[in-house]
Amino acid sequence: MLASFVQDRWVTPTDGLVDIPSAIDGRTVACASSDGVDFAAAVQHAREVGGPALRALTFHERADRLKALAAFLSERKEALYALSADTGATKRDNLFDIDGGIGTLFAYASRGRRELPAERFVIEGGTEALSRGGSFVGLHVLTPLNGVGVHINAFNFPCWGMLEKLAPTILAGVPVITKPATATAYVAEALVRLIVEANVLPKGAVQFVCGSAGDLLDHLGGQDVVSFTGSAETSERLRNHPSIGRNAVRFIAERDSLNAAVLGPDATAGSPELDLFVKEVVREMTVKAGQKCTAVRRIVVPRSLETTVTDAIKAQLDKITVGDPRRDEVRMGPLASLSQRAALRDAVAALSAETEIVAGDPERVAPVGGDADKGAFMAPVLLRCAEPLRARRVHTIEPFGPVATVMPYDTLDDAVAIVAKGEGSLVASVFTYDEAVADALVFGLAPFHGRVLILDRDCAKESTGHGSPLPGLVHGGPGRAGGGEEMGGLRGVFHYMQRTALQGSPARLASLTRTWLKGAPAPVAAVHPFKREYEALAVGDTVETGSRTITIADIEHFADFTGDSFYAHMDEAAAKANPFFPGRVAHGYLILSFAAGLFVDPAPGPLLANYGLDNLRFLKPVSPGEAIRVRLTVKEKRPARKPEYGEVRWDVEVFNQDGETVARYDLLTMSARRDASSSAAAA
Amino acid sequence: MLASFVQDRWVTPTDGLVDIPSAIDGRTVACASSDGVDFAAAVQHAREVGGPALRALTFHERADRLKALAAFLSERKEALYALSADTGATKRDNLFDIDGGIGTLFAYASRGRRELPAERFVIEGGTEALSRGGSFVGLHVLTPLNGVGVHINAFNFPCWGMLEKLAPTILAGVPVITKPATATAYVAEALVRLIVEANVLPKGAVQFVCGSAGDLLDHLGGQDVVSFTGSAETSERLRNHPSIGRNAVRFIAERDSLNAAVLGPDATAGSPELDLFVKEVVREMTVKAGQKCTAVRRIVVPRSLETTVTDAIKAQLDKITVGDPRRDEVRMGPLASLSQRAALRDAVAALSAETEIVAGDPERVAPVGGDADKGAFMAPVLLRCAEPLRARRVHTIEPFGPVATVMPYDTLDDAVAIVAKGEGSLVASVFTYDEAVADALVFGLAPFHGRVLILDRDCAKESTGHGSPLPGLVHGGPGRAGGGEEMGGLRGVFHYMQRTALQGSPARLASLTRTWLKGAPAPVAAVHPFKREYEALAVGDTVETGSRTITIADIEHFADFTGDSFYAHMDEAAAKANPFFPGRVAHGYLILSFAAGLFVDPAPGPLLANYGLDNLRFLKPVSPGEAIRVRLTVKEKRPARKPEYGEVRWDVEVFNQDGETVARYDLLTMSARRDASSSAAAA
Repeated sequence: MLASFVQDRWVTPTDGLVDIPSAIDGRTVACASSDGVDFAAAVQHAREVGGPALRALTFHERADRLKALAAFLSERKEALYALSADTGATKRDNLFDIDGGIGTLFAYASRGRRELPAERFVIEGGTEALSRGGSFVGLHVLTPLNGVGVHINAFNFPCWGMLEKLAPTILAGVPVITKPATATAYVAEALVRLIVEANVLPKGAVQFVCGSAGDLLDHLGGQDVVSFTGSAETSERLRNHPSIGRNAVRFIAERDSLNAAVLGPDATAGSPELDLFVKEVVREMTVKAGQKCTAVRRIVVPRSLETTVTDAIKAQLDKITVGDPRRDEVRMGPLASLSQRAALRDAVAALSAETEIVAGDPERVAPVGGDADKGAFMAPVLLRCAEPLRARRVHTIEPFGPVATVMPYDTLDDAVAIVAKGEGSLVASVFTYDEAVADALVFGLAPFHGRVLILDRDCAKESTGHGSPLPGLVHGGPGRAGGGEEMGGLRGVFHYMQRTALQGSPARLASLTRTWLKGAPAPVAAVHPFKREYEALAVGDTVETGSRTITIADIEHFADFTGDSFYAHMDEAAAKANPFFPGRVAHGYLILSFAAGLFVDPAPGPLLANYGLDNLRFLKPVSPGEAIRVRLTVKEKRPARKPEYGEVRWDVEVFNQDGETVARYDLLTMSARRDASSSAAAA
Repeated sequence: MLASFVQDRWVTPTDGLVDIPSAIDGRTVACASSDGVDFAAAVQHAREVGGPALRALTFHERADRLKALAAFLSERKEALYALSADTGATKRDNLFDIDGGIGTLFAYASRGRRELPAERFVIEGGTEALSRGGSFVGLHVLTPLNGVGVHINAFNFPCWGMLEKLAPTILAGVPVITKPATATAYVAEALVRLIVEANVLPKGAVQFVCGSAGDLLDHLGGQDVVSFTGSAETSERLRNHPSIGRNAVRFIAERDSLNAAVLGPDATAGSPELDLFVKEVVREMTVKAGQKCTAVRRIVVPRSLETTVTDAIKAQLDKITVGDPRRDEVRMGPLASLSQRAALRDAVAALSAETEIVAGDPERVAPVGGDADKGAFMAPVLLRCAEPLRARRVHTIEPFGPVATVMPYDTLDDAVAIVAKGEGSLVASVFTYDEAVADALVFGLAPFHGRVLILDRDCAKESTGHGSPLPGLVHGGPGRAGGGEEMGGLRGVFHYMQRTALQGSPARLASLTRTWLKGAPAPVAAVHPFKREYEALAVGDTVETGSRTITIADIEHFADFTGDSFYAHMDEAAAKANPFFPGRVAHGYLILSFAAGLFVDPAPGPLLANYGLDNLRFLKPVSPGEAIRVRLTVKEKRPARKPEYGEVRWDVEVFNQDGETVARYDLLTMSARRDASSSAAAA
């Protein structure tokens, strides 16, 4: 009997139990019900316990928790593999679901450390000048929503589906209530038991509801987010729930999607792209028995290659062994349940008005192992639709299993039109080695897809394939696919945060964001900031240097020394003819080098290294005889990966003798922390 | 009689006409109906004519059209001013509506030129490494949706409301069907007549429906976007329309919002922030007769200052002259209509359970000019709610007019809790000069708001005020405010584009995006690319330089010459003690300077200037005796603002003698275009 985990307690149901059958042989594997779960209390617990606890942590601290969780799960994944067999998953399928889910946790942990600050908010984009005088400016920050992320998952990926939603939500600082599909809830429950056992996330950060969602949605408000994966029908029912609309609850949906693979007209029998196409289509039809929201449903091929491709796919499908997923020789397990198989057979029947079957029998299969009667086995079925531009059902009915339809096309425009008839999908893949074909197909298909894969001989070896969503790339698609987006690196984190424009004086925005902006106070530090350890540096601390005149001899010497004798530095007449220069001017790198000479403090100290520059712009040329001076201000501090150092970003402005800015840039340095520097001094 | 503009023709209604009364005196100003409009044909026209025409233009070309349109309107705005008086708008109000709308067009035109490429797609974010070997990578592009933007606007800003939605949509490459609120449709119609007369946008780019929206929403699909401004009730009705949910039509809503102004506890009688607070509240209550979605509805003050603040607001409200907006002495015009006034009086009555009136009489006013009976005049009304934490209506009923409620608070947490009871608003303003107060209020309020203004003595003079949405900042708010976002610079453009992850080989992604990426072909150019005009440069063109050994003498000489004698370059023992260096190393700027010496072509030619560097990272130190060489590759080209030049971004990689990367950066240059260089050669 599966339990829910609500208010940091396991709740075992007493009533309303639903039996969950094994996909292999129909025996009851578990039973589930959310009876006894107090949904109002769960939402309140998330808001009052989990949310505040997560928001008290910085992004880096949350990332560290996710990493610890991922490591904990990784050591215990064998237990999940074993349970998954009854869902129909083969070993290959488990790589996607279990390893893929844990990998997503690791990926978000690493991004959180690398790409987010050691703060509780994010500055998004640049400063907006809102006034002539510069005393009123704007910028955008992202802060965690003060609500809960409600995740409603599909049956096909009980682990990955939970973790790919959970990782960005927790990283954002928002607690989660996760609800698996009942059909595979026993794997999800086992995963949650491990998460609870790991004990690395704060109390209230994760709750788990096994069974129906009850009245959960009644309790949601404008600070909450629902992220749903499943059928369009369920999605629409949830989205139209009165609380969702009334309170403008963010609603992320990933639903029906009739993904296409398109073979370019440049392919020929035996070309690498044709072979890759056939291999990828077969893989997509059979991995997870085709029960993937990203699986290829529409096989779009040049009419002249239709027979070649169809024959090749048939030949490969013939070699697919269907049966008990625990057996080594089995390539494809059963569907998740008998009801799932019945629905799929109905879909194939509904498609028969527009298609013919060219391979496989939806009613008959001889599984290797498993129970042929009580197991949900089905053979892969290849359909053909001769006139896809005039068809409708092949573009709108998603056969959720090992079923796909071959569709011939005549022109590239037709190929795009055929795919577009799906009215929005998660992913399309394009197989071509021709630049013009790639351009026409990719930009034709892009508006209808969240992801487009271009597969060719150059990338095939390392390609992650048509069907694999990746943490760094957007997963989701417009229209029929639901219009939602998940993952995509930090984009997926920001769905759980509120974007707010802040307006005020530079001083106030600098103090709020712990980041110096132009116009904010820049007090000259009593001690050169290069002599101060990381901890002792304050945002705004400034050095104003003395000035140095750049002579014509300096310029000539620099040219001679470096070899950079560009005419703008060396030839008065030619420099004058250049539209940007009044005559010979100093090298940009000379200005940079002299600037460093002005601000560098030579003696050993906490400043360890200059590791880079950003956004350098030379704004005004410096002519011989002009003098430069530098203002250097601490703009931002962030801890480095090693605890011994901190990264400091400095705003550097180089002025001429008239106070005009000649160059501006961000200087990046590594500074020692206090403990480290005392040991360095000892060394 | 107002007409609609559909399928590039004016459609005059024959039936179903609704009279539109003047707000000043009730006489009929116009009548309107969308009878006779074929909504299916309008959507089809947008998709088949307007969309393709707009998508054929680059962002820069679209931006130029918007600029021309803005200039055209700017010269004819007086006609709109004259018409607006009947809506109740004073001259001050027109600055927001008419000048503000035209200013938004200009702002988007300028951003389109400055911040978007001369292309039809945008690359968003960086490249994602998806494989160890680097042969499979990903990135995100944004492309225009192949649908239509349906804009449904509120009555209060017939010009700004139309233009602030239109500008980003057209810039994205998406055609518009815009529908004004009927109450002020005669101003919107006059604006559309000017847009048509200007004749700068392609056919089908703008259509206009005057009257009801008929069955417009029935025809929308997953490539369309609805952007709605108005009441929560209408918003919910539209959002729950079956097409919207079924097809996942993007739905942007901006609706009820009970915006707050919060006075910090650091204010005192006579402090600048208290005075600013009073002034801003009064302005917000009276501009546009308080009929602004961003107006202050809740005046949140420290309990100790409640009387002081209330008295000051009362004193200033007393001085507000209500009347005919055309008269110079009038500060506040009538509401938009008698029905609007009736609704507002009902709202005040509904609030009476939780409030008392402290200034103004909702039933009585003596207007200066206008018709006291038939005009929709109303006095500003100040309410007070003694226990706002226990109240509900003051946080949920939006009195859409010159009405606001004073609410005392005891602690900063209470102030945040009071504001949060509004369940999401467009904007909050915070008046404080105290860092800790600002921090607590701003980060407490941010999750509930799309914009937070911190007003104090430092920025007051240049502040654009609580109520003004700005093109560069997000406009919209969570929860009750609808959860939508508009403007915010390019963010508002991207709402009309599809984000798509592209995956493939670096070569393929480079050819698709016209941007070189690491791993893409880098053929060494036969002619040094610095000798080639902008047009002749191809993305990928590469220079491989010879190498140069950096000697200890070079380092010492550079230190001596520039003054940068940082110990890591000069002191072997100290350098060794540094955790990053093996001993004395070359200056970063020496590496940069020698690199330039290796790749620069000295003679006059099309390369005009190096104007900056981006993303410079020193990845490995260079010790004396090591040799560096450089690879320089054309990464990206974009036209400069002046037609004579083009900007070229070069990927620069500096290697040591072992082929290890020691530095990497983007070099930015300005190169002459062909015509220009021939004239430069002549000069």
